[in-house]
Amino acid sequence: MKESAVRILELEVEKPVLGKANFDSERLLKALKKVLGESFLKISLYVLRKLPQVLREGGHKVWVILVKEEEGWIVSEIFSKKPERVLGVAIDLGSTSIAFYLYNFLEKKIIKEYSILNPQIPMGEDILTRLHLAKKEENLNYIREITLESINRELREIDGASIFYVSLCGNTAMSHFVLGLPVNYLFVEPYVPCANWYGIFKKEEVGFEIHPEGRIFVFPSAGTYFGGDLVAGLYFSEIYKRERMSFFIDVGTNAEVVLGNKDFLLACAGAAGPALEGGIFDCGCQAKDGAIESIKIYPQVKKIEYQTIGTQKPVGICGSGVIELMAELFIKGILTPEGKFNLQSFPERFTEINEEKAFIVVPPEESATGKPIYIKASEVRSFIRSKGAMYTILSLLCEKLGISFDEVEGFYIAGSFGNHIKVEAAVDIGMLPEEALNKAYPLGNAAGKGALKFLKEANLKEIKKIMETITYLELNVEPRFMQLLTGALFFPHVNRNLFPTVMKKLKNF
Amino acid sequence: MKESAVRILELEVEKPVLGKANFDSERLLKALKKVLGESFLKISLYVLRKLPQVLREGGHKVWVILVKEEEGWIVSEIFSKKPERVLGVAIDLGSTSIAFYLYNFLEKKIIKEYSILNPQIPMGEDILTRLHLAKKEENLNYIREITLESINRELREIDGASIFYVSLCGNTAMSHFVLGLPVNYLFVEPYVPCANWYGIFKKEEVGFEIHPEGRIFVFPSAGTYFGGDLVAGLYFSEIYKRERMSFFIDVGTNAEVVLGNKDFLLACAGAAGPALEGGIFDCGCQAKDGAIESIKIYPQVKKIEYQTIGTQKPVGICGSGVIELMAELFIKGILTPEGKFNLQSFPERFTEINEEKAFIVVPPEESATGKPIYIKASEVRSFIRSKGAMYTILSLLCEKLGISFDEVEGFYIAGSFGNHIKVEAAVDIGMLPEEALNKAYPLGNAAGKGALKFLKEANLKEIKKIMETITYLELNVEPRFMQLLTGALFFPHVNRNLFPTVMKKLKNF
Repeated sequence: MKESAVRILELEVEKPVLGKANFDSERLLKALKKVLGESFLKISLYVLRKLPQVLREGGHKVWVILVKEEEGWIVSEIFSKKPERVLGVAIDLGSTSIAFYLYNFLEKKIIKEYSILNPQIPMGEDILTRLHLAKKEENLNYIREITLESINRELREIDGASIFYVSLCGNTAMSHFVLGLPVNYLFVEPYVPCANWYGIFKKEEVGFEIHPEGRIFVFPSAGTYFGGDLVAGLYFSEIYKRERMSFFIDVGTNAEVVLGNKDFLLACAGAAGPALEGGIFDCGCQAKDGAIESIKIYPQVKKIEYQTIGTQKPVGICGSGVIELMAELFIKGILTPEGKFNLQSFPERFTEINEEKAFIVVPPEESATGKPIYIKASEVRSFIRSKGAMYTILSLLCEKLGISFDEVEGFYIAGSFGNHIKVEAAVDIGMLPEEALNKAYPLGNAAGKGALKFLKEANLKEIKKIMETITYLELNVEPRFMQLLTGALFFPHVNRNLFPTVMKKLKNF
Repeated sequence: MKESAVRILELEVEKPVLGKANFDSERLLKALKKVLGESFLKISLYVLRKLPQVLREGGHKVWVILVKEEEGWIVSEIFSKKPERVLGVAIDLGSTSIAFYLYNFLEKKIIKEYSILNPQIPMGEDILTRLHLAKKEENLNYIREITLESINRELREIDGASIFYVSLCGNTAMSHFVLGLPVNYLFVEPYVPCANWYGIFKKEEVGFEIHPEGRIFVFPSAGTYFGGDLVAGLYFSEIYKRERMSFFIDVGTNAEVVLGNKDFLLACAGAAGPALEGGIFDCGCQAKDGAIESIKIYPQVKKIEYQTIGTQKPVGICGSGVIELMAELFIKGILTPEGKFNLQSFPERFTEINEEKAFIVVPPEESATGKPIYIKASEVRSFIRSKGAMYTILSLLCEKLGISFDEVEGFYIAGSFGNHIKVEAAVDIGMLPEEALNKAYPLGNAAGKGALKFLKEANLKEIKKIMETITYLELNVEPRFMQLLTGALFFPHVNRNLFPTVMKKLKNF
């Protein structure tokens, strides 16, 4: 049975009778147990203090709100009539932005979904800078404070007193920051986080401005580089429930990949992220208005067609655009399998930027900025390493578990990246295997959706099962990774037999 | 196994190794589980926040303090060396005085034991006045505040930061007051307390100034008139563990009596208290210096011998003195079996006080106050009702369970009363049955000792078992009580066959 983290029950409580031990609390528990069976139930002191009054106001008909604890449930609120607002908030605490999902427990639906910038950014764009600063206790406290302030501003705006649950996920650093846990040993060998299982907290422990007896669940970390955001993503993907094996792929700063099923989960992370999202390219950009998200190149007729988000004038290329660009350049013969430019293929579009060859995707007169949108030779090299790393991680995990790509049931791709990725293009360049073609599924923001799922079905057992069955494969100590990588540093791969469909396409062009 | 409410463990924690998911919290839990097995263990956020530092300071050798929760244990504190002070406080929150027992968990011994006056007394000497005032929320809050202030003054004096556990018991009204629970329906029909099981609290819930991750256990109430003090007393008496049945007898404002064994407990309370303690007599007093605690009367030689506490000049008669006085008056023929004065027996000692006959125990010239110490006819009548009620409660409980006094294994008598009671005198007047003569055991302050026992062996299961097996017999709805009482309103009883030893004594005098 799926039980949400907050339960709202209408109860009819027995009236007291003379000559019996007739405690209000006991009669309330008796009414609750009729509905819930013999769960471990506790009535908060907050509710006990108003219980006699509310019971009699409502003629012994009451509404109670129960919230999930690590063991059992606690009665958090009691009303003599149906409450108007019973809310939950799922928070994906990312290092760049904080996503909020507002959930209405009464109507069992999402009310609102939005994000704000992480206020820690001025302390350092990248997370390592922040971790370094947080070695000093006062800085850690400051980072925690500004994070709480930002989140509390939103919670107040929503109406803190009506929020009975917060379900939060973040990477290991973010979870440590928001809970005020030291990170001093997190980023030096042997990379030791303070905690993995954080658990369920009372409002005053974390410092969130919610209902006095609301609770906060923080998703556990499975490793230094496998944080609560990924655990939440896995929880959303449900690959841990299936008989057959599936991939869970999250592309962010790193490429985090899990291969597994109901029996075990093998996890691995590698530096394959930023280049795939275009984040480190001169003309890369986030998936915003004006970002090129789709592209077709016709060298014979000297034409490039593209689509931008919001059909605005182009400002740059986003992640899905970069992958399609690479695929088009390779399939249309502008990039060789080794990732070198074939200058003869579309000479009009080549130029030099900072003394290196570059391919102009959008000439200056067409772009929103008046500057050209291009891709440089070194950017292609960087991209090929990233896509090669992704393919290698997938191959390595299959090899470790002794299965082939054929036997994989699904490729679940998380992140905004996953929502827009052109699977065909990713296969064309050998980032994903051909076997992904008909079984790749985008999950969207799996982390946020996993946190939201906890509000809807607070299954601690499943989350603990994920924690218990997951094994982390450390690439640093894995010589086989480098061996496999060598073959993947080509479009699509040094072993062309792995990509027969791509080969046919190349031949047909 | 007996587990104290606070456990202090020295642990050697594994050092982290590269290439493993090596959370500090996980390695600490692993070390704990080696000692404790698979108990439900949680590390408090307070400890997590200092964990990385303390682990490394101590070269991964640490001392941890665990405290008992309703489910499992929480790690409350961590040190890199052996802590100096780990304390617990047991509190018996009486309506007149608050008794403190200070316990050292490191050395497993009691350090100190003392009591202070209950600061609620100015709000009303008797508890009904206070309950009536507390119907108003601001008064309830005020009563709670002054109680917390008094207790916190003592906790601060002891050293709050070193106190990891408070175990508190009180009657139902006192427990409600200290937790701020409404008492509005407690003293009006059908006499409904807010709560019975209070549970284990964090410091901020109750408001005690103890260690940030200390816990507070409040003994549950089994009925309006059967509070946590009595549950604690039973817990101390351990009659609930025995095969054979025993009596637990507590004489206070009421006489509270339990008869039972490991299978069930039958409880009953009656208005038999104050007169037995001498509390409502003109010359009754507490067991303090100058109180007459023992007395012998020799009418033939016109002599009265007495002993006072501290061998001071007499100021009054305390509970045990009153019982012996009554026994002496009856056995020596000064009181008839009906409780009337035999004015011929010792005429020199009779006088009139407020138009009633009175027997002078101590003439004015011998007393500390210069006034006589006496007992009036109406006081004897009142006493006979109380002693009769006590005997009747004992008889009624036996009758209900179908056993005779012969089959009772022990008579455990709680309270300071129990410590000093002359069992023989109590039998002479028919307050206790003859069968109690060789099997009456004083428990002292059983409530306080029960609270202390929880610090030493925090056995929630046993306390829950007491709660589950106890049945409360309501005297108001028990016609048999009045029938039995009639026979007991004599010295020693209307049925003299019940007291053959006393009869022999009377004859011999």
